[in-house]
Amino acid sequence: MTTAPERLRATDAPARRADTHFADPTRAEIFEAHRGGKLATGLTVPLRDPRDLAIAYTPGVAEISREIAADPAKAARYTWANRLVAVVSDGTAVLGLGNIGPRAALPVMEGKSALFKTFAELDSIPLVLDTTDVDEIVETLVRLRPSFGAVNLEDVAAPRCFELEAKLIEALDCPVMHDDQHGTAIVLLAALRGACAVDDRDLTQLKVVISGAGAAGVACAKILLAAGVADVIVLDSRGVLTADRGGVKADLAAVTNPRGVTGGIAEALTGADVFVGLSSARVPEELVAAMAPEGMVFALSNPDPEVRPEVAARYAAIVATGRSDYPNQINNVLAFPGIFRGALDAGARRITERMKLAAAEAIFSVASDDLAADRIVPSPCDPRVAPAVAAAVSAAATHSE
Amino acid sequence: MTTAPERLRATDAPARRADTHFADPTRAEIFEAHRGGKLATGLTVPLRDPRDLAIAYTPGVAEISREIAADPAKAARYTWANRLVAVVSDGTAVLGLGNIGPRAALPVMEGKSALFKTFAELDSIPLVLDTTDVDEIVETLVRLRPSFGAVNLEDVAAPRCFELEAKLIEALDCPVMHDDQHGTAIVLLAALRGACAVDDRDLTQLKVVISGAGAAGVACAKILLAAGVADVIVLDSRGVLTADRGGVKADLAAVTNPRGVTGGIAEALTGADVFVGLSSARVPEELVAAMAPEGMVFALSNPDPEVRPEVAARYAAIVATGRSDYPNQINNVLAFPGIFRGALDAGARRITERMKLAAAEAIFSVASDDLAADRIVPSPCDPRVAPAVAAAVSAAATHSE
Repeated sequence: MTTAPERLRATDAPARRADTHFADPTRAEIFEAHRGGKLATGLTVPLRDPRDLAIAYTPGVAEISREIAADPAKAARYTWANRLVAVVSDGTAVLGLGNIGPRAALPVMEGKSALFKTFAELDSIPLVLDTTDVDEIVETLVRLRPSFGAVNLEDVAAPRCFELEAKLIEALDCPVMHDDQHGTAIVLLAALRGACAVDDRDLTQLKVVISGAGAAGVACAKILLAAGVADVIVLDSRGVLTADRGGVKADLAAVTNPRGVTGGIAEALTGADVFVGLSSARVPEELVAAMAPEGMVFALSNPDPEVRPEVAARYAAIVATGRSDYPNQINNVLAFPGIFRGALDAGARRITERMKLAAAEAIFSVASDDLAADRIVPSPCDPRVAPAVAAAVSAAATHSE
Repeated sequence: MTTAPERLRATDAPARRADTHFADPTRAEIFEAHRGGKLATGLTVPLRDPRDLAIAYTPGVAEISREIAADPAKAARYTWANRLVAVVSDGTAVLGLGNIGPRAALPVMEGKSALFKTFAELDSIPLVLDTTDVDEIVETLVRLRPSFGAVNLEDVAAPRCFELEAKLIEALDCPVMHDDQHGTAIVLLAALRGACAVDDRDLTQLKVVISGAGAAGVACAKILLAAGVADVIVLDSRGVLTADRGGVKADLAAVTNPRGVTGGIAEALTGADVFVGLSSARVPEELVAAMAPEGMVFALSNPDPEVRPEVAARYAAIVATGRSDYPNQINNVLAFPGIFRGALDAGARRITERMKLAAAEAIFSVASDDLAADRIVPSPCDPRVAPAVAAAVSAAATHSE
């Protein structure tokens, strides 16, 4: 187990929270926990005797079916569909493992369902697809539409994920969100707000460099722009995005990089206030040293951050990673359970930009109770977060209608 | 509440079992039980703290995904898919309500899932489809194949259900069964064995008339033939099946009606030993009177049996219905939970004729402990049935491989 960054530990003791300390799970323990899978279905009504059967099944259930046949909107009240999230993946970008296919993606989707249940009391079913064709995936979910109330897209490779999300939002009259994009972006924004509060900085004045123009990188850039950050530079493996990239990257090039920086990560990071790593490309120590003083480093690749937090802490005022064994874990679980819960509670048909910003604000607001350089976001297991996010998203949804 | 048949009550007291007596559920009670739906998802592993998260989600879950990516067969061990039944319907033949669509069908599918859980500890998810096109349904389930371990087809209208089941069995390498066909047929065969044991009759010598050539009628005819019943006559709304019907009905005409009976239900029932009603077409008292003495009447339409049990009991030695408020309820729940459980336990890729016959035998064998004219099948809530069926089906599956 790597220890927490020295600088943070030295200057902000007790910097490491108790909940960031645990013995590494063993391989045997992990496999044992996954035997038979992690999910189960259960009943919300008793089925003990023939009378229970006559209520929940025939002949009683016919009353409910008749009612819904007469008024399909009643399905929202008398079935589980309206509180059910389909966790959908084609297995093309699973964790850091890449295109490992739907079967190998399923354990991750089961984990996601478990998180929905634990943090937002939402039911969900993993649907992993043996096709990577965008139109076939859309068609499949359109056919299944009466079965669920929302779609959490997961681990779909960029740039296909942008097209898939857009087409699903168009085709389905229910909340759809690709969590690898927006979940990450929302938590990053919340963390950046937390960091600004700790260091008394103005979010909108920060110079932000995002390394990675995949699902998360693109969404992070967009939400930061929406939150008023003026100076955002995005890089892919070829360097600072320019208009000749085409597609989503060209769109992004057009609205970012106001100073017209050219080149690669070295040029972009010189004098920058914030580094956001979402590409797994290593950043040498001298580049972190070239950032503006009191900078912020979000080295989010898992399990290997772009910069070792111990190294980043030599220069930056704030260091965050995606790892649970360091402080400031940027974990999507802070966002997605509350977002879907809020959207479903409000009967929203879309997850709007306004709802995403409200979610970030709610996460920041929970963190505000106890902010510090190593506590810019709440712990992923903080039970206050999902209800706060759900309430904020639900209010924002109602406001949008 | 209708009372139990007088004749049975008079001659076989105590003919009405305690569990067939309960106050009719009120409409309000039924609606209350369905509020928010009847299903929920749950976790099989704890998720209390960051360490639990590191096991069930990232980074621990990556070990499992890697393992499955290297050997897809491991998905059966480390995901829930292999113990998950997809309960699939297009809503075209829901209970006795007809084509009321997927949304109105969903409460029935949720009920089915609840029964899978209660009786066989099997998880299942309802998938209701907004298409009635056979090839589109097959295509959808093929794409979702990595998400589940078996398919229970439900409430799909005949004759499309025959084509759909056949194509799904061809396209999917997992157990597929249309319960309205085979569940009913298996329980009918079990009940007929029970009735023969009570009355000391030889099953194979019975003259059987099946009214209805829909999903259940066709499957009942087939399983009776497979069980050795030689004299089966099947009727649809036009009368005794003949070769000019085409499709499944023509196939059935070719292997049934050995005495070459022509005409309608009156001609067919004269001198018959067994009536199986699966069409909701009313049968007048005089036709029941024209059956052979000591006959058996299975008036299975719900909620209105083809013959009122009180009337049938004036002539027949054995009377069975589909209703829970009469003795001898022919309820699919005696079959499907154990069948899928047994097939999945055995890792079977098909549900074979042999497995279906084994299921019927197992149900009969549980009933054998306590047979009587009003106890030819176990109660639908008898907890001994599903495990017995599962064991028999699993053994038959292993034997078939």
